[in-house]
Amino acid sequence: MSIIRHFEDFTPGAIIELGSRSVSRDEIIAFASEFDPQPFHLSEEAGKASLLGGLAASGWHSAAIFMRLLVDGLLGQAAGQGAPGIDKLMWRRPVYPGDTLSATAEVLTSRPLRSRPGLGVVGFRFVVSNQRGETVMTLENPILFACREMPA
Amino acid sequence: MSIIRHFEDFTPGAIIELGSRSVSRDEIIAFASEFDPQPFHLSEEAGKASLLGGLAASGWHSAAIFMRLLVDGLLGQAAGQGAPGIDKLMWRRPVYPGDTLSATAEVLTSRPLRSRPGLGVVGFRFVVSNQRGETVMTLENPILFACREMPA
Repeated sequence: MSIIRHFEDFTPGAIIELGSRSVSRDEIIAFASEFDPQPFHLSEEAGKASLLGGLAASGWHSAAIFMRLLVDGLLGQAAGQGAPGIDKLMWRRPVYPGDTLSATAEVLTSRPLRSRPGLGVVGFRFVVSNQRGETVMTLENPILFACREMPA
Repeated sequence: MSIIRHFEDFTPGAIIELGSRSVSRDEIIAFASEFDPQPFHLSEEAGKASLLGGLAASGWHSAAIFMRLLVDGLLGQAAGQGAPGIDKLMWRRPVYPGDTLSATAEVLTSRPLRSRPGLGVVGFRFVVSNQRGETVMTLENPILFACREMPA
């Protein structure tokens, strides 16, 4: 049985490890071909000639890989109800073929949602790192969760 | 021949139309299966039981579709050098199977980059709408562009 986390289970200050996932050259090129066909996401040559220093993943690909880590490591065992947006996302270093990304979630804030009793909003800061421990992406965003107990 | 836009070509206040693109049920499920396998992105039943009101695209899928519009409608004919991050992204309405998304870019700010002569940073606000004219996503982010003329 999976343990289900509800709104009440997220305490500010808590840090949750979200696991890791590698990305291949073929995956980088496939994602970029469909969604972000800028030259530096499609070929070594264009990547080397760019600020990225080599073929590198679309920032949206890195974000999507992070999302998969978040689902596998947290939301898949929680009563998540979606997210209204992202407050701040920074692509801090390129993601190259063969990199393994891992992520952590830090709970920043937690408050019941007045407009929708039975839901609460948890503010997170996420840090995504590569296999050398370098931060490649950070983002902050609120996520809605169902409460375990409905308000009286 | 394509017209190449450089840093100098982006004037605050300018609005650029980025075209449109539809998203199918199969694409929504395929993207979610790989990157965001939350139930409401995978089945009608779970979508109807959620705040989204029906099977709806992952917010990261909407962002990726927007990116493709941005490349096809602007960056593909510009000297873009990547983006350091996103200042604020809001998912304002669900994106459902069969929706057609279109986007506009508004130039908010423009300044040469002191730390890297020959580059400038342009601040954009993007609005993504569906076929009913409803805003589904907004985001603001800076993008780097090469200058047409190197500083003296």
